[in-house]
Amino acid sequence: MDAETYVKQLATAARAAAAELALTRGAQRNDGLCSAAAAIRSAAADLQAANEKDLARKDEFALTDAMVDRLTLTDKRIEGMATALEQIAAQDDPVGKTISATNRPNGLRVEKRRVPIGVVGIIFESRPNVTADVAGLCLKSGNACILRGGKEAMHSNQAIATVVREALTAADLPADAAIMIDRTDHDIVTAMARAEGLIDLIIPRGGERLIRAVVEAATIPVIKHYAGNCHVYIHSAADLDMAESIVMNAKCQRPGVCNAAETLLVDAAVAEDFLPTICHKLTDAGVELRGCQRSRKLFKGMKAACEDDWRTEFLDLILAVKVVDSLSDAVTHINTFSSAHTEAIVTGDLAAADEFVARVDSSSVMVNASTRFSDGGEYGLGAEVGISTDKLHARGPMGAEDLTTYKWIVTGRGHVRT
Amino acid sequence: MDAETYVKQLATAARAAAAELALTRGAQRNDGLCSAAAAIRSAAADLQAANEKDLARKDEFALTDAMVDRLTLTDKRIEGMATALEQIAAQDDPVGKTISATNRPNGLRVEKRRVPIGVVGIIFESRPNVTADVAGLCLKSGNACILRGGKEAMHSNQAIATVVREALTAADLPADAAIMIDRTDHDIVTAMARAEGLIDLIIPRGGERLIRAVVEAATIPVIKHYAGNCHVYIHSAADLDMAESIVMNAKCQRPGVCNAAETLLVDAAVAEDFLPTICHKLTDAGVELRGCQRSRKLFKGMKAACEDDWRTEFLDLILAVKVVDSLSDAVTHINTFSSAHTEAIVTGDLAAADEFVARVDSSSVMVNASTRFSDGGEYGLGAEVGISTDKLHARGPMGAEDLTTYKWIVTGRGHVRT
Repeated sequence: MDAETYVKQLATAARAAAAELALTRGAQRNDGLCSAAAAIRSAAADLQAANEKDLARKDEFALTDAMVDRLTLTDKRIEGMATALEQIAAQDDPVGKTISATNRPNGLRVEKRRVPIGVVGIIFESRPNVTADVAGLCLKSGNACILRGGKEAMHSNQAIATVVREALTAADLPADAAIMIDRTDHDIVTAMARAEGLIDLIIPRGGERLIRAVVEAATIPVIKHYAGNCHVYIHSAADLDMAESIVMNAKCQRPGVCNAAETLLVDAAVAEDFLPTICHKLTDAGVELRGCQRSRKLFKGMKAACEDDWRTEFLDLILAVKVVDSLSDAVTHINTFSSAHTEAIVTGDLAAADEFVARVDSSSVMVNASTRFSDGGEYGLGAEVGISTDKLHARGPMGAEDLTTYKWIVTGRGHVRT
Repeated sequence: MDAETYVKQLATAARAAAAELALTRGAQRNDGLCSAAAAIRSAAADLQAANEKDLARKDEFALTDAMVDRLTLTDKRIEGMATALEQIAAQDDPVGKTISATNRPNGLRVEKRRVPIGVVGIIFESRPNVTADVAGLCLKSGNACILRGGKEAMHSNQAIATVVREALTAADLPADAAIMIDRTDHDIVTAMARAEGLIDLIIPRGGERLIRAVVEAATIPVIKHYAGNCHVYIHSAADLDMAESIVMNAKCQRPGVCNAAETLLVDAAVAEDFLPTICHKLTDAGVELRGCQRSRKLFKGMKAACEDDWRTEFLDLILAVKVVDSLSDAVTHINTFSSAHTEAIVTGDLAAADEFVARVDSSSVMVNASTRFSDGGEYGLGAEVGISTDKLHARGPMGAEDLTTYKWIVTGRGHVRT
């Protein structure tokens, strides 16, 4: 079957499930989540058997060690999926909340009320736990989802989806609220991105190439989750001890994630005091430094940075370093090279903090805190769909509420317009 | 110059203006709005002279009488533009509002604060007042805008934009906060829809063909403003006098606008009582009726409706009529054929109203009120950008607040993640 017909068929089933879900109560959806959590725990052996099949093909797909690590379903990760579903069940119900309600002068009542979006399409890569997390967040918010995972995780994803679908049926919810696509040809991605009237939103999570391909093909709304090229700027009025601990944390605590720092900007006024010390510490921690000309004068053991280094999300123990003459230069550098994910300033100067917050055009701006806090859990959202680098609809960490839209409900007593 | 280079050049100027605007205070932007209002009043003669040039070409562009009417800048319409700008100035400032703020258990303060989107691109057709309205709403919300109007209104649009830009300069605001594109080749539309990193959002307002073309080309987010194929459903428990006055109002009070009704659905239980009377009234009011087989049995003077009639926004004194067996059938018809704009139910039955509200997948759902109330002004939003038929970011009437996004501002005292 061609990809377009195949996606239409699945999306039509998802749409019917979404219409059913829109009429369910939160308690019933929470039961579904808890029953899925229990089912995942009981099916642990089956899930690991499916996972073994994927892992056996690691050479065929030329997976790196990091990719194999992400793909592997350990006991701890399976328990993690179950716990995440229970945590999602425990959250407030985002559906049905009144955003605003007014009585107009003519007596008409105008209410803006949260409702599910409908059908959400998620396109993701290696981590199989995304299947359970995203299906859970969509169910919580009353949406049906169509998932398309990476080919290297196909057996694992299918096994998890089967367990979730059985749990939905057991909770008297439509199984088609969570559909895992079992084909991995790229045409499926294009067909999903063009399924107008059937899929309401596409969220691509993965590498830049995947996201670009989705955006290029799409005729339905896309919320992009680009990488995190995050910056830490040490302002002239920074407490340098604080600066040191924030830089070390932002770069070294978990270098492989999107909210780790990739570029350090140091104000010229404190560069002489700060740069040599922090560079020694970073080098001692195994970080490779790539610096501008001025920073290389202050610390010799540094390669020269090229323009590409300013744009790169290293996801590794590598840090680009630049001396800037002012807060304004730091902001210009960030707004030029950042992926608009998360940036931090370290300063004791209130006006500088305010200016940085106002001028930096990124989803999260940290004042005297590590970029590593940019995360749905840390922000109190519970589980997250991802971290949007877009400005429309949802920006930064996206929780279940961001998977809702609203409806205007207008109630009269025979009101007509004059 | 090719369209892409041209748009990039203008969008880069708008982007710089947006960065400046993001740092202005609301009072300053309001001064700009009031000074633009005053400038439009003083320039009335110049605006009408420019408008004459457009009107002189009406045969060249084969404008219908309705289009000529929309294009004409009367004294009243010029005063209307000025008044709208003053009303926008008087609204609450949407920028800088705290959406939520929490202190996390670790003492980190996490705030979600409204900020401008950046650069908004608007593509619209004949009405020149859109130039002033949209530039005003963008200025209010701290956004720069790039406007591309219809070729038939080019002189009028340019003249209005020139006045607005002079007023911005006089108020010490960047003139490039409002850029009117002076080329009307279609390549400009495509280039706008693909200006990633320069334009943050495209809003096409106009015919379905224009919107489809933008969606097809776009790589940046689009908020679609499709037509209104609005329905009124008369439930079995409707007060039939109320039903009559709502139907007459929804169809006849202003048939040429998007929130007028286009299809009447009558429950079989009340069809015999209701249909003949309402059809006589509608026919007397000059409405042409196109009915299903069952409704034609109850009222003879009706053409047969074809499937296209269920899909059509007539924007005229034409109404499609259908007898349905149940609320469920009404909902199915609406969710199949509607443009997801506005639908109304007339009923005295609370459960029926609740079910209709929950199941109809449109931006506005009216209970015992005319569809004609679906409007930013009627909902208390003040001026509106338009009525979104999308579900993402903004749904239904869009006001100045819908032209904002948010930023997460996280404040610590040297917080690092463990």
